[in-house]
Amino acid sequence: MESEKKMEVIQSTNNPRIKTWYQLKSKKGRQEQGLYIIEGIKLIEEAIDAKQEIEALIFDQGKDLPESLALHLEKYDLSIPIVSVSTPVIEKLSDTETPQGVLAILKKKNIEIEKLLENQFSFYLLIDQIQDPGNLGTIIRSADAAGVQGIILGNSTVELYNSKVIRSAMGSIFHLSIVQDELDQIIPKLQKNGVKVIGTSPYASKTYFEVDLTQKVAIIVGNEAKGLSDSRKQQVDEMIKIPLVGKAESLNVAMATTLILYERVRQMEKGWA
Amino acid sequence: MESEKKMEVIQSTNNPRIKTWYQLKSKKGRQEQGLYIIEGIKLIEEAIDAKQEIEALIFDQGKDLPESLALHLEKYDLSIPIVSVSTPVIEKLSDTETPQGVLAILKKKNIEIEKLLENQFSFYLLIDQIQDPGNLGTIIRSADAAGVQGIILGNSTVELYNSKVIRSAMGSIFHLSIVQDELDQIIPKLQKNGVKVIGTSPYASKTYFEVDLTQKVAIIVGNEAKGLSDSRKQQVDEMIKIPLVGKAESLNVAMATTLILYERVRQMEKGWA
Repeated sequence: MESEKKMEVIQSTNNPRIKTWYQLKSKKGRQEQGLYIIEGIKLIEEAIDAKQEIEALIFDQGKDLPESLALHLEKYDLSIPIVSVSTPVIEKLSDTETPQGVLAILKKKNIEIEKLLENQFSFYLLIDQIQDPGNLGTIIRSADAAGVQGIILGNSTVELYNSKVIRSAMGSIFHLSIVQDELDQIIPKLQKNGVKVIGTSPYASKTYFEVDLTQKVAIIVGNEAKGLSDSRKQQVDEMIKIPLVGKAESLNVAMATTLILYERVRQMEKGWA
Repeated sequence: MESEKKMEVIQSTNNPRIKTWYQLKSKKGRQEQGLYIIEGIKLIEEAIDAKQEIEALIFDQGKDLPESLALHLEKYDLSIPIVSVSTPVIEKLSDTETPQGVLAILKKKNIEIEKLLENQFSFYLLIDQIQDPGNLGTIIRSADAAGVQGIILGNSTVELYNSKVIRSAMGSIFHLSIVQDELDQIIPKLQKNGVKVIGTSPYASKTYFEVDLTQKVAIIVGNEAKGLSDSRKQQVDEMIKIPLVGKAESLNVAMATTLILYERVRQMEKGWA
Protein backbone atom coordinates (compact mmCIF):
# COMPACT_ATOMS: atom_id res chain seq x y z
CA MET A 1 0.00 0.00 0.00
CA GLU A 2 1.45 3.33 -1.05
CA SER A 3 0.20 5.24 1.92
CA GLU A 4 2.09 2.95 4.28
CA LYS A 5 4.85 5.45 4.88
CA LYS A 6 2.37 7.74 6.59
CA MET A 7 0.95 5.10 8.86
CA GLU A 8 1.16 5.52 12.59
CA VAL A 9 0.34 2.88 15.21
CA ILE A 10 -1.38 3.60 18.51
CA GLN A 11 -2.06 0.83 21.02
CA SER A 12 -3.04 2.63 24.18
CA THR A 13 -6.31 4.36 24.99
CA ASN A 14 -4.20 6.70 27.13
CA ASN A 15 -2.27 8.05 24.17
CA PRO A 16 -2.65 11.86 24.16
CA ARG A 17 -3.96 12.00 20.57
CA ILE A 18 -6.63 9.42 21.40
CA LYS A 19 -7.58 11.43 24.46
CA THR A 20 -7.94 14.54 22.33
CA TRP A 21 -10.06 12.71 19.75
CA TYR A 22 -12.15 11.16 22.51
CA GLN A 23 -13.24 14.69 23.43
CA LEU A 24 -14.89 14.92 20.00
CA LYS A 25 -17.63 12.68 21.33
CA SER A 26 -18.98 15.72 23.18
CA LYS A 27 -20.41 18.88 21.65
CA LYS A 28 -17.95 20.94 23.72
CA GLY A 29 -14.97 19.04 22.33
CA ARG A 30 -16.22 19.43 18.76
CA GLN A 31 -16.68 23.15 19.28
CA GLU A 32 -13.22 23.61 20.76
CA GLN A 33 -11.39 21.58 18.13
CA GLY A 34 -13.53 22.33 15.05
CA LEU A 35 -13.49 18.63 14.26
CA TYR A 36 -15.95 15.74 14.35
CA ILE A 37 -15.96 11.95 14.03
CA ILE A 38 -17.65 9.88 11.34
CA GLU A 39 -17.88 6.09 11.31
CA GLY A 40 -18.14 3.33 8.75
CA ILE A 41 -16.73 2.59 5.32
CA LYS A 42 -19.60 3.98 3.25
CA LEU A 43 -19.78 7.29 5.06
CA ILE A 44 -16.01 7.82 4.90
CA GLU A 45 -16.04 7.04 1.18
CA GLU A 46 -18.80 9.61 0.73
CA ALA A 47 -16.76 12.16 2.67
CA ILE A 48 -13.82 11.50 0.35
CA ASP A 49 -16.03 11.77 -2.75
CA ALA A 50 -17.47 15.04 -1.46
CA LYS A 51 -13.94 16.40 -0.86
CA GLN A 52 -14.33 16.92 2.87
CA GLU A 53 -11.16 17.75 4.77
CA ILE A 54 -10.08 14.60 6.58
CA GLU A 55 -7.74 15.08 9.52
CA ALA A 56 -7.10 11.38 10.12
CA LEU A 57 -8.33 7.96 9.15
CA ILE A 58 -8.34 5.46 12.00
CA PHE A 59 -8.73 1.73 11.61
CA ASP A 60 -8.69 -1.34 13.81
CA GLN A 61 -5.35 -3.09 13.29
CA GLY A 62 -7.08 -6.41 13.93
CA LYS A 63 -9.38 -5.85 10.95
CA ASP A 64 -7.00 -3.99 8.62
CA LEU A 65 -7.95 -1.00 6.45
CA PRO A 66 -10.93 -2.10 4.31
CA GLU A 67 -9.85 -2.65 0.72
CA SER A 68 -12.57 -0.54 -0.91
CA LEU A 69 -11.52 2.35 1.28
CA ALA A 70 -7.84 1.91 0.42
CA LEU A 71 -8.78 1.94 -3.28
CA HIS A 72 -10.85 5.05 -2.70
CA LEU A 73 -7.86 6.84 -1.19
CA GLU A 74 -5.61 5.78 -4.06
CA LYS A 75 -8.17 6.93 -6.63
CA TYR A 76 -8.01 10.48 -5.33
CA ASP A 77 -4.29 10.21 -4.49
CA LEU A 78 -5.00 11.59 -1.05
CA SER A 79 -2.29 11.92 1.56
CA ILE A 80 -4.49 11.49 4.60
CA PRO A 81 -2.72 10.53 7.84
CA ILE A 82 -3.70 6.94 8.54
CA VAL A 83 -3.58 5.62 12.09
CA SER A 84 -3.71 1.94 12.95
CA VAL A 85 -5.08 1.40 16.45
CA SER A 86 -5.93 -1.39 18.88
CA THR A 87 -9.52 -2.63 19.23
CA PRO A 88 -9.93 -0.91 22.65
CA VAL A 89 -9.03 2.42 21.02
CA ILE A 90 -11.66 1.90 18.29
CA GLU A 91 -14.21 1.01 20.94
CA LYS A 92 -13.33 4.10 22.94
CA LEU A 93 -13.80 6.43 19.96
CA SER A 94 -16.80 4.68 18.41
CA ASP A 95 -20.37 5.60 19.14
CA THR A 96 -21.99 2.44 17.81
CA GLU A 97 -22.49 -0.86 19.59
CA THR A 98 -20.88 -2.87 16.81
CA PRO A 99 -18.14 -0.65 15.36
CA GLN A 100 -17.17 -1.39 11.75
CA GLY A 101 -13.59 -0.80 12.79
CA VAL A 102 -12.97 2.35 10.81
CA LEU A 103 -13.41 6.00 11.77
CA ALA A 104 -12.40 9.34 10.36
CA ILE A 105 -11.77 12.70 11.99
CA LEU A 106 -13.19 15.47 9.80
CA LYS A 107 -12.81 19.21 9.83
CA LYS A 108 -16.10 21.05 10.20
CA LYS A 109 -16.98 22.96 7.07
CA ASN A 110 -16.61 26.66 7.59
CA ILE A 111 -19.57 28.20 5.81
CA GLU A 112 -20.27 31.83 6.48
CA ILE A 113 -23.91 32.71 6.80
CA GLU A 114 -23.43 35.88 4.76
CA LYS A 115 -22.17 33.85 1.81
CA LEU A 116 -25.11 31.54 2.05
CA LEU A 117 -27.44 34.53 1.89
CA GLU A 118 -25.46 36.36 -0.81
CA ASN A 119 -25.51 33.32 -2.98
CA GLN A 120 -29.18 33.91 -3.27
CA PHE A 121 -30.20 30.32 -3.51
CA SER A 122 -33.84 29.75 -4.36
CA PHE A 123 -34.61 26.91 -1.93
CA TYR A 124 -33.80 27.13 1.77
CA LEU A 125 -34.79 25.08 4.79
CA LEU A 126 -34.79 26.65 8.25
CA ILE A 127 -34.83 24.27 11.21
CA ASP A 128 -36.07 25.75 14.45
CA GLN A 129 -35.73 23.85 17.74
CA ILE A 130 -35.69 20.29 16.41
CA GLN A 131 -34.46 18.22 19.36
CA ASP A 132 -34.18 14.65 18.16
CA PRO A 133 -30.90 13.91 16.31
CA GLY A 134 -32.55 11.16 14.23
CA ASN A 135 -35.21 13.60 13.05
CA LEU A 136 -32.63 16.23 12.13
CA GLY A 137 -30.52 13.72 10.20
CA THR A 138 -33.51 12.36 8.30
CA ILE A 139 -34.70 15.87 7.47
CA ILE A 140 -31.25 16.75 6.08
CA ARG A 141 -31.31 13.58 3.96
CA SER A 142 -34.74 14.50 2.57
CA ALA A 143 -33.66 18.10 1.97
CA ASP A 144 -30.71 16.83 -0.03
CA ALA A 145 -32.99 14.57 -2.09
CA ALA A 146 -35.44 17.42 -2.74
CA GLY A 147 -32.73 19.79 -3.97
CA VAL A 148 -32.64 22.20 -1.03
CA GLN A 149 -29.58 24.44 -1.46
CA GLY A 150 -29.05 25.97 1.96
CA ILE A 151 -30.03 24.84 5.44
CA ILE A 152 -29.96 27.12 8.45
CA LEU A 153 -30.27 25.50 11.87
CA GLY A 154 -31.53 27.71 14.65
CA ASN A 155 -29.29 27.88 17.69
CA SER A 156 -31.79 25.88 19.74
CA THR A 157 -31.72 23.01 17.29
CA VAL A 158 -29.68 19.90 18.10
CA GLU A 159 -26.06 20.22 16.97
CA LEU A 160 -25.30 19.20 13.39
CA TYR A 161 -22.20 17.18 14.28
CA ASN A 162 -23.94 14.93 16.82
CA SER A 163 -23.06 11.35 15.80
CA LYS A 164 -26.72 10.32 15.46
CA VAL A 165 -27.46 13.27 13.18
CA ILE A 166 -24.54 12.31 10.96
CA ARG A 167 -25.57 8.67 10.88
CA SER A 168 -29.18 9.33 9.87
CA ALA A 169 -28.24 12.03 7.34
CA MET A 170 -26.31 9.32 5.45
CA GLY A 171 -23.75 11.57 3.79
CA SER A 172 -26.11 14.44 3.01
CA ILE A 173 -24.29 16.79 5.37
CA PHE A 174 -21.38 16.66 2.94
CA HIS A 175 -23.57 17.77 0.01
CA LEU A 176 -25.30 20.78 1.47
CA SER A 177 -24.39 24.21 2.78
CA ILE A 178 -25.51 24.08 6.41
CA VAL A 179 -24.95 26.74 9.05
CA GLN A 180 -26.19 27.21 12.60
CA ASP A 181 -27.24 30.77 13.46
CA GLU A 182 -29.87 33.05 15.04
CA LEU A 183 -33.05 32.61 12.98
CA ASP A 184 -34.48 35.85 14.42
CA GLN A 185 -31.94 37.77 12.36
CA ILE A 186 -31.72 35.43 9.38
CA ILE A 187 -35.40 35.54 8.45
CA PRO A 188 -35.56 39.32 7.74
CA LYS A 189 -32.36 39.02 5.68
CA LEU A 190 -33.85 36.26 3.56
CA GLN A 191 -37.03 38.29 3.10
CA LYS A 192 -35.00 41.30 2.01
CA ASN A 193 -33.44 39.11 -0.68
CA GLY A 194 -36.89 38.24 -2.03
CA VAL A 195 -37.18 34.85 -0.34
CA LYS A 196 -40.69 33.96 0.85
CA VAL A 197 -40.53 32.34 4.29
CA ILE A 198 -43.21 29.68 4.78
CA GLY A 199 -44.02 28.11 8.12
CA THR A 200 -46.25 25.25 9.18
CA SER A 201 -49.08 25.07 11.67
CA PRO A 202 -52.04 22.71 12.07
CA TYR A 203 -54.21 25.83 12.30
CA ALA A 204 -53.15 27.40 8.99
CA SER A 205 -56.00 28.00 6.55
CA LYS A 206 -54.21 26.76 3.43
CA THR A 207 -52.76 23.31 2.84
CA TYR A 208 -49.21 22.91 1.57
CA PHE A 209 -50.43 22.11 -1.93
CA GLU A 210 -52.54 25.25 -2.15
CA VAL A 211 -49.57 27.60 -1.99
CA ASP A 212 -47.16 28.52 -4.79
CA LEU A 213 -43.75 27.16 -3.83
CA THR A 214 -42.06 27.77 -7.19
CA GLN A 215 -40.61 31.15 -6.21
CA LYS A 216 -37.62 31.68 -3.97
CA VAL A 217 -38.72 30.00 -0.76
CA ALA A 218 -37.48 29.13 2.70
CA ILE A 219 -39.48 26.46 4.50
CA ILE A 220 -39.28 26.73 8.26
CA VAL A 221 -40.11 23.83 10.57
CA GLY A 222 -40.36 23.86 14.34
CA ASN A 223 -40.09 21.71 17.42
CA GLU A 224 -41.38 18.12 17.39
CA ALA A 225 -44.01 18.68 20.07
CA LYS A 226 -44.65 22.41 20.07
CA GLY A 227 -44.10 23.43 16.45
CA LEU A 228 -43.14 27.05 15.76
CA SER A 229 -43.24 29.59 18.57
CA ASP A 230 -45.77 32.41 18.36
CA SER A 231 -43.06 35.02 17.83
CA ARG A 232 -41.63 32.94 14.99
CA LYS A 233 -45.04 32.68 13.34
CA GLN A 234 -45.21 36.48 13.39
CA GLN A 235 -42.04 36.64 11.31
CA VAL A 236 -43.01 34.31 8.47
CA ASP A 237 -44.78 35.36 5.26
CA GLU A 238 -47.28 32.55 5.02
CA MET A 239 -48.43 29.59 7.08
CA ILE A 240 -49.43 26.24 5.63
CA LYS A 241 -50.83 23.04 7.08
CA ILE A 242 -50.78 19.36 6.20
CA PRO A 243 -54.31 17.98 6.17
CA LEU A 244 -54.96 15.04 8.48
CA VAL A 245 -57.50 12.91 6.68
CA GLY A 246 -57.61 10.00 9.11
CA LYS A 247 -57.52 9.83 12.89
CA ALA A 248 -53.83 10.51 13.55
CA GLU A 249 -53.34 13.64 15.65
CA SER A 250 -50.17 14.68 13.88
CA LEU A 251 -47.37 13.58 11.60
CA ASN A 252 -43.75 13.05 12.57
CA VAL A 253 -41.85 16.29 11.87
CA ALA A 254 -39.48 14.64 9.40
CA MET A 255 -42.47 13.34 7.41
CA ALA A 256 -44.16 16.74 7.45
CA THR A 257 -40.98 18.48 6.30
CA THR A 258 -40.40 15.96 3.52
CA LEU A 259 -43.95 16.43 2.23
CA ILE A 260 -43.52 20.19 1.94
CA LEU A 261 -40.04 20.02 0.39
CA TYR A 262 -41.28 17.54 -2.21
CA GLU A 263 -44.36 19.62 -2.98
CA ARG A 264 -41.90 22.16 -4.32
CA VAL A 265 -40.24 19.43 -6.41
CA ARG A 266 -43.67 18.50 -7.81
CA GLN A 267 -44.63 22.10 -8.54
CA MET A 268 -41.30 22.80 -10.25
CA GLU A 269 -41.88 19.83 -12.53
CA LYS A 270 -45.62 19.95 -13.09
CA GLY A 271 -46.14 23.69 -12.64
CA TRP A 272 -48.01 25.40 -9.85
CA ALA A 273 -51.81 24.89 -9.58
CA MET B 1 -62.18 5.79 43.32
CA GLU B 2 -65.00 3.57 42.09
CA SER B 3 -62.79 1.01 40.49
CA GLU B 4 -61.05 0.33 43.79
CA LYS B 5 -63.03 -2.80 44.42
CA LYS B 6 -61.35 -4.42 41.43
CA MET B 7 -57.84 -3.49 42.42
CA GLU B 8 -55.27 -6.18 42.98
CA VAL B 9 -51.79 -5.72 44.46
CA ILE B 10 -48.67 -7.57 43.27
CA GLN B 11 -45.29 -6.99 44.91
CA SER B 12 -43.11 -9.78 43.58
CA THR B 13 -41.54 -10.12 40.17
CA ASN B 14 -41.92 -13.87 40.70
CA ASN B 15 -45.69 -13.70 40.81
CA PRO B 16 -47.05 -16.12 38.16
CA ARG B 17 -49.19 -13.43 36.44
CA ILE B 18 -46.17 -11.15 36.15
CA LYS B 19 -44.16 -14.02 34.72
CA THR B 20 -46.88 -14.65 32.14
CA TRP B 21 -47.03 -10.97 31.21
CA TYR B 22 -43.26 -10.80 31.05
CA GLN B 23 -43.42 -13.31 28.20
CA LEU B 24 -45.31 -10.66 26.19
CA LYS B 25 -42.00 -8.88 25.72
CA SER B 26 -41.14 -11.52 23.12
CA LYS B 27 -42.88 -12.13 19.80
CA LYS B 28 -43.36 -15.78 20.76
CA GLY B 29 -45.15 -14.84 23.99
CA ARG B 30 -47.40 -12.39 22.14
CA GLN B 31 -48.29 -15.02 19.58
CA GLU B 32 -49.08 -17.66 22.19
CA GLN B 33 -51.20 -15.39 24.39
CA GLY B 34 -52.77 -13.13 21.76
CA LEU B 35 -51.90 -10.15 23.96
CA TYR B 36 -49.41 -7.29 23.89
CA ILE B 37 -48.12 -4.53 26.18
CA ILE B 38 -48.51 -0.79 25.70
CA GLU B 39 -46.88 1.88 27.86
CA GLY B 40 -47.59 5.42 28.95
CA ILE B 41 -50.62 7.48 29.88
CA LYS B 42 -51.32 9.00 26.47
CA LEU B 43 -51.19 5.71 24.59
CA ILE B 44 -53.41 3.94 27.12
CA GLU B 45 -55.94 6.78 26.92
CA GLU B 46 -55.92 6.46 23.15
CA ALA B 47 -56.49 2.72 23.46
CA ILE B 48 -59.49 3.41 25.72
CA ASP B 49 -60.85 6.04 23.32
CA ALA B 50 -60.46 3.64 20.41
CA LYS B 51 -62.32 0.94 22.36
CA GLN B 52 -59.49 -1.58 22.40
CA GLU B 53 -59.97 -4.61 24.63
CA ILE B 54 -57.85 -4.05 27.71
CA GLU B 55 -56.99 -7.15 29.74
CA ALA B 56 -55.36 -5.30 32.62
CA LEU B 57 -54.09 -1.89 33.62
CA ILE B 58 -50.90 -1.97 35.66
CA PHE B 59 -49.48 0.94 37.62
CA ASP B 60 -46.59 1.63 39.94
CA GLN B 61 -47.95 1.78 43.49
CA GLY B 62 -45.25 4.32 44.33
CA LYS B 63 -46.61 6.69 41.71
CA ASP B 64 -50.35 5.96 41.96
CA LEU B 65 -52.73 5.68 39.01
CA PRO B 66 -52.40 8.93 37.03
CA GLU B 67 -55.47 11.10 37.57
CA SER B 68 -56.21 11.80 33.91
CA LEU B 69 -56.22 8.06 33.30
CA ALA B 70 -58.56 7.41 36.23
CA LEU B 71 -60.92 10.07 34.85
CA HIS B 72 -60.70 8.46 31.44
CA LEU B 73 -61.78 5.11 32.87
CA GLU B 74 -64.67 6.70 34.74
CA LYS B 75 -65.81 8.56 31.63
CA TYR B 76 -66.35 5.30 29.78
CA ASP B 77 -67.47 3.48 32.92
CA LEU B 78 -65.03 0.70 32.12
CA SER B 79 -64.53 -2.22 34.44
CA ILE B 80 -60.93 -2.97 33.57
CA PRO B 81 -58.96 -5.03 36.08
CA ILE B 82 -56.47 -2.69 37.69
CA VAL B 83 -53.29 -4.05 39.21
CA SER B 84 -51.07 -2.05 41.54
CA VAL B 85 -47.49 -3.32 41.46
CA SER B 86 -44.06 -2.61 42.95
CA THR B 87 -41.50 -0.54 41.02
CA PRO B 88 -39.37 -3.66 40.26
CA VAL B 89 -42.43 -5.25 38.59
CA ILE B 90 -42.98 -2.15 36.41
CA GLU B 91 -39.31 -2.17 35.48
CA LYS B 92 -39.48 -5.84 34.59
CA LEU B 93 -42.47 -5.37 32.28
CA SER B 94 -41.43 -2.03 30.81
CA ASP B 95 -39.43 -1.66 27.63
CA THR B 96 -38.37 1.94 28.12
CA GLU B 97 -35.44 3.26 30.09
CA THR B 98 -37.55 5.69 32.09
CA PRO B 99 -40.93 3.99 32.55
CA GLN B 100 -43.88 6.34 33.12
CA GLY B 101 -45.13 3.86 35.69
CA VAL B 102 -48.22 2.71 33.85
CA LEU B 103 -48.75 -0.16 31.42
CA ALA B 104 -51.68 -1.94 29.87
CA ILE B 105 -52.10 -5.46 28.56
CA LEU B 106 -54.19 -5.38 25.38
CA LYS B 107 -55.87 -8.08 23.33
CA LYS B 108 -54.68 -8.19 19.75
CA LYS B 109 -57.41 -7.18 17.34
CA ASN B 110 -58.70 -10.12 15.41
CA ILE B 111 -59.20 -8.84 11.89
CA GLU B 112 -59.80 -11.41 9.20
CA ILE B 113 -58.09 -10.73 5.94
CA GLU B 114 -61.19 -11.78 3.99
CA LYS B 115 -63.25 -9.08 5.71
CA LEU B 116 -60.63 -6.49 4.93
CA LEU B 117 -60.82 -7.46 1.27
CA GLU B 118 -64.62 -7.80 1.17
CA ASN B 119 -65.01 -4.37 2.66
CA GLN B 120 -63.62 -3.10 -0.56
CA PHE B 121 -61.83 -0.15 0.86
CA SER B 122 -60.41 2.25 -1.70
CA PHE B 123 -57.02 2.94 -0.10
CA TYR B 124 -54.68 0.15 1.00
CA LEU B 125 -51.06 0.04 2.04
CA LEU B 126 -49.06 -3.17 1.65
CA ILE B 127 -45.80 -3.40 3.59
CA ASP B 128 -43.31 -5.92 2.30
CA GLN B 129 -40.18 -6.83 4.30
CA ILE B 130 -39.78 -3.65 6.31
CA GLN B 131 -37.32 -4.60 9.06
CA ASP B 132 -36.91 -1.56 11.30
CA PRO B 133 -39.67 -1.25 13.94
CA GLY B 134 -39.32 2.55 14.03
CA ASN B 135 -39.86 2.73 10.28
CA LEU B 136 -42.93 0.50 10.46
CA GLY B 137 -44.46 2.52 13.29
CA THR B 138 -43.85 5.83 11.55
CA ILE B 139 -45.31 4.49 8.30
CA ILE B 140 -48.45 3.36 10.14
CA ARG B 141 -48.78 6.83 11.72
CA SER B 142 -48.48 8.48 8.30
CA ALA B 143 -50.93 6.01 6.77
CA ASP B 144 -53.44 6.90 9.47
CA ALA B 145 -52.94 10.62 8.79
CA ALA B 146 -53.37 10.12 5.03
CA GLY B 147 -56.62 8.19 5.41
CA VAL B 148 -55.40 4.72 4.49
CA GLN B 149 -58.16 2.25 5.34
CA GLY B 150 -56.46 -1.11 5.39
CA ILE B 151 -52.85 -2.14 5.93
CA ILE B 152 -51.51 -5.57 5.08
CA LEU B 153 -48.10 -6.49 6.43
CA GLY B 154 -46.25 -9.19 4.56
CA ASN B 155 -45.12 -12.11 6.69
CA SER B 156 -41.47 -11.04 6.39
CA THR B 157 -42.21 -7.61 7.81
CA VAL B 158 -41.34 -6.87 11.44
CA GLU B 159 -44.16 -7.84 13.82
CA LEU B 160 -46.87 -5.24 14.42
CA TYR B 161 -46.92 -5.69 18.20
CA ASN B 162 -43.20 -5.06 18.72
CA SER B 163 -42.96 -2.37 21.42
CA LYS B 164 -40.96 0.00 19.21
CA VAL B 165 -43.53 -0.26 16.42
CA ILE B 166 -46.31 0.59 18.85
CA ARG B 167 -44.38 3.50 20.32
CA SER B 168 -43.61 5.14 17.00
CA ALA B 169 -47.10 4.51 15.60
CA MET B 170 -48.43 6.73 18.43
CA GLY B 171 -51.90 5.22 18.69
CA SER B 172 -52.47 4.75 14.98
CA ILE B 173 -52.51 0.96 15.30
CA PHE B 174 -55.80 1.39 17.18
CA HIS B 175 -57.37 3.36 14.33
CA LEU B 176 -56.63 1.14 11.39
CA SER B 177 -57.45 -2.35 10.17
CA ILE B 178 -54.08 -4.06 10.02
CA VAL B 179 -53.42 -7.71 9.23
CA GLN B 180 -50.29 -9.74 8.60
CA ASP B 181 -50.55 -12.23 5.74
CA GLU B 182 -48.96 -13.68 2.58
CA LEU B 183 -48.75 -10.81 0.08
CA ASP B 184 -48.24 -13.29 -2.79
CA GLN B 185 -51.86 -14.33 -2.40
CA ILE B 186 -53.30 -10.99 -1.28
CA ILE B 187 -52.21 -8.99 -4.32
CA PRO B 188 -54.22 -11.01 -6.91
CA LYS B 189 -57.28 -10.83 -4.63
CA LEU B 190 -57.02 -7.04 -4.43
CA GLN B 191 -56.59 -6.81 -8.19
CA LYS B 192 -59.68 -9.00 -8.70
CA ASN B 193 -61.62 -6.46 -6.61
CA GLY B 194 -60.55 -3.65 -8.93
CA VAL B 195 -57.75 -2.32 -6.76
CA LYS B 196 -54.71 -1.05 -8.66
CA VAL B 197 -51.51 -2.18 -6.96
CA ILE B 198 -48.71 0.37 -7.25
CA GLY B 199 -45.10 -0.31 -6.31
CA THR B 200 -42.01 1.85 -6.06
CA SER B 201 -38.62 1.57 -7.68
CA PRO B 202 -35.87 4.09 -8.38
CA TYR B 203 -35.87 2.75 -11.95
CA ALA B 204 -39.58 3.33 -12.68
CA SER B 205 -40.24 5.61 -15.65
CA LYS B 206 -43.03 7.65 -14.04
CA THR B 207 -42.79 9.75 -10.90
CA TYR B 208 -45.38 9.36 -8.14
CA PHE B 209 -47.13 12.58 -9.17
CA GLU B 210 -47.50 11.47 -12.78
CA VAL B 211 -49.83 8.59 -11.95
CA ASP B 212 -53.54 8.75 -11.17
CA LEU B 213 -53.98 7.67 -7.54
CA THR B 214 -57.63 8.68 -7.21
CA GLN B 215 -58.98 5.23 -8.04
CA LYS B 216 -59.01 2.25 -5.73
CA VAL B 217 -55.31 1.81 -4.97
CA ALA B 218 -52.95 -0.27 -2.90
CA ILE B 219 -49.49 1.21 -2.46
CA ILE B 220 -46.82 -1.41 -1.82
CA VAL B 221 -43.47 -0.56 -0.25
CA GLY B 222 -40.48 -2.85 0.19
CA ASN B 223 -37.38 -3.44 2.26
CA GLU B 224 -35.28 -0.49 3.50
CA ALA B 225 -32.16 -1.48 1.60
CA LYS B 226 -33.35 -3.72 -1.20
CA GLY B 227 -36.80 -2.37 -2.06
CA LEU B 228 -39.30 -4.72 -3.69
CA SER B 229 -38.14 -8.13 -4.88
CA ASP B 230 -38.17 -8.87 -8.61
CA SER B 231 -41.01 -11.36 -8.24
CA ARG B 232 -43.04 -8.79 -6.34
CA LYS B 233 -42.47 -6.19 -9.05
CA GLN B 234 -43.91 -8.71 -11.55
CA GLN B 235 -47.14 -8.81 -9.58
CA VAL B 236 -47.88 -5.09 -9.38
CA ASP B 237 -49.87 -3.07 -11.91
CA GLU B 238 -47.64 -0.02 -12.10
CA MET B 239 -44.29 1.14 -10.79
CA ILE B 240 -43.52 4.70 -9.71
CA LYS B 241 -40.41 6.49 -8.53
CA ILE B 242 -39.61 9.47 -6.34
CA PRO B 243 -37.30 11.85 -8.19
CA LEU B 244 -34.00 12.63 -6.44
CA VAL B 245 -33.23 16.22 -7.35
CA GLY B 246 -30.14 16.69 -5.20
CA LYS B 247 -27.23 14.41 -4.38
CA ALA B 248 -28.86 12.04 -1.88
CA GLU B 249 -28.77 8.45 -3.09
CA SER B 250 -32.15 7.57 -1.65
CA LEU B 251 -34.88 8.58 0.78
CA ASN B 252 -35.72 6.87 4.05
CA VAL B 253 -38.52 4.35 3.35
CA ALA B 254 -40.93 6.04 5.76
CA MET B 255 -40.41 9.37 3.95
CA ALA B 256 -40.92 7.75 0.55
CA THR B 257 -44.11 6.02 1.70
CA THR B 258 -45.50 9.20 3.24
CA LEU B 259 -44.89 11.14 0.02
CA ILE B 260 -46.85 8.63 -2.05
CA LEU B 261 -49.72 8.30 0.43
CA TYR B 262 -50.07 12.08 0.60
CA GLU B 263 -49.95 12.43 -3.16
CA ARG B 264 -53.25 10.56 -3.11
CA VAL B 265 -54.57 13.02 -0.49
CA ARG B 266 -53.53 15.89 -2.76
CA GLN B 267 -55.08 14.34 -5.87
CA MET B 268 -58.34 13.59 -4.06
CA GLU B 269 -58.59 17.25 -3.03
CA LYS B 270 -57.18 19.01 -6.05
CA GLY B 271 -58.10 16.46 -8.70
CA TRP B 272 -55.76 14.32 -10.73
CA ALA B 273 -53.44 16.03 -13.26
